[in-house]
Amino acid sequence: MRILMINPNTSVLMTERMAESASHSLAPDVDLVAMTAPHGMPYISSRAEALIAGATTLEMIAAHQDGMDAVVIAAFGDPGLVAAREQFDLPITAMAEAAMHTACMLGHRFAIVTFTQVMTAWYEDAVALAGLQARCTGVRVPDVGFRSIDHVQGELEEALIELCCRAVTDDKADTIILAGAPLTGFAAKVADRVPVPLIDPLDAAVGQAALLARLRTRPARAGRFARPPSKLATGLPPALGAWIEHRT
Amino acid sequence: MRILMINPNTSVLMTERMAESASHSLAPDVDLVAMTAPHGMPYISSRAEALIAGATTLEMIAAHQDGMDAVVIAAFGDPGLVAAREQFDLPITAMAEAAMHTACMLGHRFAIVTFTQVMTAWYEDAVALAGLQARCTGVRVPDVGFRSIDHVQGELEEALIELCCRAVTDDKADTIILAGAPLTGFAAKVADRVPVPLIDPLDAAVGQAALLARLRTRPARAGRFARPPSKLATGLPPALGAWIEHRT
Amino acid sequence: MRILMINPNTSVLMTERMAESASHSLAPDVDLVAMTAPHGMPYISSRAEALIAGATTLEMIAAHQDGMDAVVIAAFGDPGLVAAREQFDLPITAMAEAAMHTACMLGHRFAIVTFTQVMTAWYEDAVALAGLQARCTGVRVPDVGFRSIDHVQGELEEALIELCCRAVTDDKADTIILAGAPLTGFAAKVADRVPVPLIDPLDAAVGQAALLARLRTRPARAGRFARPPSKLATGLPPALGAWIEHRT
Amino acid sequence: MRILMINPNTSVLMTERMAESASHSLAPDVDLVAMTAPHGMPYISSRAEALIAGATTLEMIAAHQDGMDAVVIAAFGDPGLVAAREQFDLPITAMAEAAMHTACMLGHRFAIVTFTQVMTAWYEDAVALAGLQARCTGVRVPDVGFRSIDHVQGELEEALIELCCRAVTDDKADTIILAGAPLTGFAAKVADRVPVPLIDPLDAAVGQAALLARLRTRPARAGRFARPPSKLATGLPPALGAWIEHRT
Amino acid sequence: MRILMINPNTSVLMTERMAESASHSLAPDVDLVAMTAPHGMPYISSRAEALIAGATTLEMIAAHQDGMDAVVIAAFGDPGLVAAREQFDLPITAMAEAAMHTACMLGHRFAIVTFTQVMTAWYEDAVALAGLQARCTGVRVPDVGFRSIDHVQGELEEALIELCCRAVTDDKADTIILAGAPLTGFAAKVADRVPVPLIDPLDAAVGQAALLARLRTRPARAGRFARPPSKLATGLPPALGAWIEHRT
Amino acid sequence: MRILMINPNTSVLMTERMAESASHSLAPDVDLVAMTAPHGMPYISSRAEALIAGATTLEMIAAHQDGMDAVVIAAFGDPGLVAAREQFDLPITAMAEAAMHTACMLGHRFAIVTFTQVMTAWYEDAVALAGLQARCTGVRVPDVGFRSIDHVQGELEEALIELCCRAVTDDKADTIILAGAPLTGFAAKVADRVPVPLIDPLDAAVGQAALLARLRTRPARAGRFARPPSKLATGLPPALGAWIEHRT
Repeated sequence: MRILMINPNTSVLMTERMAESASHSLAPDVDLVAMTAPHGMPYISSRAEALIAGATTLEMIAAHQDGMDAVVIAAFGDPGLVAAREQFDLPITAMAEAAMHTACMLGHRFAIVTFTQVMTAWYEDAVALAGLQARCTGVRVPDVGFRSIDHVQGELEEALIELCCRAVTDDKADTIILAGAPLTGFAAKVADRVPVPLIDPLDAAVGQAALLARLRTRPARAGRFARPPSKLATGLPPALGAWIEHRT
Repeated sequence: MRILMINPNTSVLMTERMAESASHSLAPDVDLVAMTAPHGMPYISSRAEALIAGATTLEMIAAHQDGMDAVVIAAFGDPGLVAAREQFDLPITAMAEAAMHTACMLGHRFAIVTFTQVMTAWYEDAVALAGLQARCTGVRVPDVGFRSIDHVQGELEEALIELCCRAVTDDKADTIILAGAPLTGFAAKVADRVPVPLIDPLDAAVGQAALLARLRTRPARAGRFARPPSKLATGLPPALGAWIEHRT
Repeated sequence: MRILMINPNTSVLMTERMAESASHSLAPDVDLVAMTAPHGMPYISSRAEALIAGATTLEMIAAHQDGMDAVVIAAFGDPGLVAAREQFDLPITAMAEAAMHTACMLGHRFAIVTFTQVMTAWYEDAVALAGLQARCTGVRVPDVGFRSIDHVQGELEEALIELCCRAVTDDKADTIILAGAPLTGFAAKVADRVPVPLIDPLDAAVGQAALLARLRTRPARAGRFARPPSKLATGLPPALGAWIEHRT
Repeated sequence: MRILMINPNTSVLMTERMAESASHSLAPDVDLVAMTAPHGMPYISSRAEALIAGATTLEMIAAHQDGMDAVVIAAFGDPGLVAAREQFDLPITAMAEAAMHTACMLGHRFAIVTFTQVMTAWYEDAVALAGLQARCTGVRVPDVGFRSIDHVQGELEEALIELCCRAVTDDKADTIILAGAPLTGFAAKVADRVPVPLIDPLDAAVGQAALLARLRTRPARAGRFARPPSKLATGLPPALGAWIEHRT
Repeated sequence: MRILMINPNTSVLMTERMAESASHSLAPDVDLVAMTAPHGMPYISSRAEALIAGATTLEMIAAHQDGMDAVVIAAFGDPGLVAAREQFDLPITAMAEAAMHTACMLGHRFAIVTFTQVMTAWYEDAVALAGLQARCTGVRVPDVGFRSIDHVQGELEEALIELCCRAVTDDKADTIILAGAPLTGFAAKVADRVPVPLIDPLDAAVGQAALLARLRTRPARAGRFARPPSKLATGLPPALGAWIEHRT
Repeated sequence: MRILMINPNTSVLMTERMAESASHSLAPDVDLVAMTAPHGMPYISSRAEALIAGATTLEMIAAHQDGMDAVVIAAFGDPGLVAAREQFDLPITAMAEAAMHTACMLGHRFAIVTFTQVMTAWYEDAVALAGLQARCTGVRVPDVGFRSIDHVQGELEEALIELCCRAVTDDKADTIILAGAPLTGFAAKVADRVPVPLIDPLDAAVGQAALLARLRTRPARAGRFARPPSKLATGLPPALGAWIEHRT
């Protein structure tokens, strides 16, 4: 089984780290193929950036879907997820949605803990889109800042663990989602120091993509998720234009 | 007062019709400046197309916002609305959101009547985004098709009026929103044949943009709608890249 | 365009102040006609008082609607709004509802800041009636009291500004509604000291009334907002009794 | 135990019928004292009429509360209920609210069946006010009309029974509330012909008033339901004005 | 009228105390028959224990329903309530549900105050089951522990009163439910020290059971609460097996 | 990886069929161990039966959890799921919950199609428990009956396919869950005849159990899903009593 992992941001280093981290919880028959966005921002921290990255996600899936069994959008906040699920015929998961549904099977209410305030609006939108507000205790962010997004796990380790513990005692969270691509792998590292299950969103998204592929459900041919009819498209990236115009 | 009207689709004919239609309900001190998308699709009928058009909307606002008092996104479904409101400092309205909030002040529950099934998923998303599901009786669509999107008002006139009447009697709608840019101007034409107020979304969006400009509220400098910090951006359209990188 | 502004309370001073404040954001073609309640309480601070004032509002509209294009109920909490909208044929807005829908087009979540605890139950009811609970971060009130309702803006200026700032940082409000007729005009005065848009409910209500009048929608002749059939009415104020009995 | 039953409408015949009907399910130690509105409409069929009747309800409770253990507002739709509960110190129930909460203890979802379309908006508001929308399958009304409100039970008997049965089979209602004062007593008459429990709202309201009186809870002295501070009141009915000004 | 009070726990002492406490607010024509669970736990503090106690409740009703007019499940959290209401033909109430619906007729929002953290998950489930989340300000628990569940009222008296007062001032609760069978009778004892009505859940449940019996509604013969068809049952307690197999 | 599959009903034939059906979508490293309930009913069709089966589920997990990596409760409606997840330390999934969360990653709204009306109340409860009502288009049931639960797939094949198609066209379902253990394996058989993805709940539940086991999250030691403290338990099945009393 081949799963396409799309990093809708431009950081190759982040793509490599994520691919490495995800490899630890794969079933034995799953191969992961990782891709980095050819343009855009090194990471997303606003909904405008998410919108732009969403369009890039469509472009990347159009270009690389051949021979794949499923797609993972490797950014928390899920840029382009619904649009991609509507346009393309293979199963597609993304980090926020997959983490939330996975969390719902380990407890009743999940908290989202992340590393910077600028992400929270975007993450709250993801909770609302899934209709899971009643199961989310909220998004918690440390009061302290950090110097480098590449070392944020180390810099904020104590602050994040303390936040997780407060999400349990104060917010009554049953599980905790460690949100944001830069926290990939952090859950495994600190699991012993937080008294409830920690969800790694990338592990969840890759696991759910594999599960969906394994179910071998057919693509929709009617309704909200059937591929739209062909449409004239001007000035789009070639693979995406071709897919929208039904030339591929 | 100058209001920028953005058509995120590529049809110049549609832009001209909308500008003409909107001119009838402007206050005496309002000028409307209309723009058509330089690339994309002639009209939107899927969420993938809406996502692409949303990115184009950001690009167009970045390029044309100077000297404007407010912006109207002239597509029902509101591509790019939240992202644009977050990125830019002037008031921004869009057709679905403005029509719904306007309808809420003329009755308790509104129906959305449109001309083609392919739009409904996108429109339902707009209702949910506004948190107004409890005030919406649903989206109604004729059973019959049409030949040309340019003449859809004439072709479907009887079918649409009948749908409006059924939305009142069967769904208990208090007002009706005639959704989709191709229905611009239709409300005024058929008002006498439907027993409740009909909302023209473009009139509502332009009116609300003028109202917001008149209130002279200040732009957000904190929270979810403050302009995000500057960010490195690679390969974006020039005006948008410059705005995101805070070079303008 | 002529708009009837109804103060459902008995304070003529308040009526005059409100009319003056509203005059600053009118479109050039709008005239405002202000009326004060002939009986009742000098201001409303309970739902029983609101109920009584609501009946007075009906009485005043019945007496003064001739020649008007729209009505504004100039009390936050909107006494009699739904009943009036149902009974009468011209557009009717009120301060709480108009402020909330306007706020929803400037940000996602609004806070309501007011000057006394006794109002909060009534204001929360208005949020619920509009179905906008999910977009409201709550009603905030200063801990400190005040001596005179006529000078409450000056007495509580610092306390109210601090509350607004806390609504932004603690409650994540995107905009703030300054609620209660005695705060009319306060938003413009302190806009520079709060980092998000401030909504003046009277400006919003008058602006929305003008917008609805400009749309020239027809009155409902079916459904929840059609004028009810004539009904025998005993012992009511003359103009209201005549309207309910369809004698006018 | 003495319970004051207030008919906020002007029909003495209706008051007498209701008092007689309610007498059949009283506990042995309960006396019912019935009063008819001195002005207003013979029955309520709009929210404007409900608003006016609500103010009359306050006036009647102010005038007749002495020596009573509880009050029942004997109109479905509950005119003045929340305002009265806030102003006065004894337990107060009303027909819609009491019927709904009672129904919730006999099944999960209740239907409301009534005899005329004009009531439905008002009844839906009562469901929403109680926050019980998720437990209500909707308001059903016969397609056929009736000649006299005094004989509506006989005229519509078959139509109402059929509606009840359809509420069970089509809407999956577990219980049915027979709404509107003119249907008082109908539930007992037709119970054998509908396969789920039928709720008589007046029986429920009187029963709940007796139950609340029996619990002997203290009146609120803080929060939303504490009696408001004294307030200057001009031109109100004497007993109500005196109560609001704390002269009684 | 005979009401069967079921204690689904094994503590005979608790059953006796509850029967004694409930006797104070009975109507003159009501007899209470109390039963204690023959197996299980002395009290419930988890949902697994509630599930087991729920099955025991079914068993006890099957064994003791003959000659009864109604049943009260005398545990807050209502083990087995919905299942019992579905299986059996007489009215059945339980402490959490009855307390909540009763509270809703004394104010708008209720708080739940209890004595130990371990109960809260179960109590929140009961609020959600009733669909009353919007009317509940939350479950509050003292920070301090207690030595003996038999003397918890005395040990925690001051802490519980302080919690009640904070539920009023901080959470804006209009009424307070004192939850958990061990707090039976506490409301009457401390009513003077809390400024809003206190609900004793057992009094509410017994009162509501008597009210339902007095209404003499018929049992459901269709829908979700009709007695299920007979079913082969292996290895169940005799009376319950006989009832499920329709042998009684 | 070893997964314990619990059939909480007494039919060994059903257990065998389910184990065989689930074997087709297992990852290569997963072993399934199937168990049948030692007492109870051959299948569940009421909430009372579900309650009894839930207690049996606890008993079976207590007896057979040693050496397992995860548990699947193999009944749609999920008897005992929340209680089991709270009591035991290994991941536990069940058919309704797993099917719903899986469906949410293949489309926005799912329908539930099942074979008999008696199940629907129980299934709706499962949707509500998950908080996914807004994503469920409803439960659909054929109008026609069937002779044998063992051959229901064959008897109702055409009726069920037609229901699925109507769920797509009329209810706008994006995916369909084929609910009820007797429909296990049906999705794969008829996938080509329904134009949207069909979810087999057992495949989903087993897949999700394997996914959770693969994530290796730690069991909760705090909050709603931590194992409760030891409790005296009288007259329970031995393994369950021992687990509750912390003797194992």
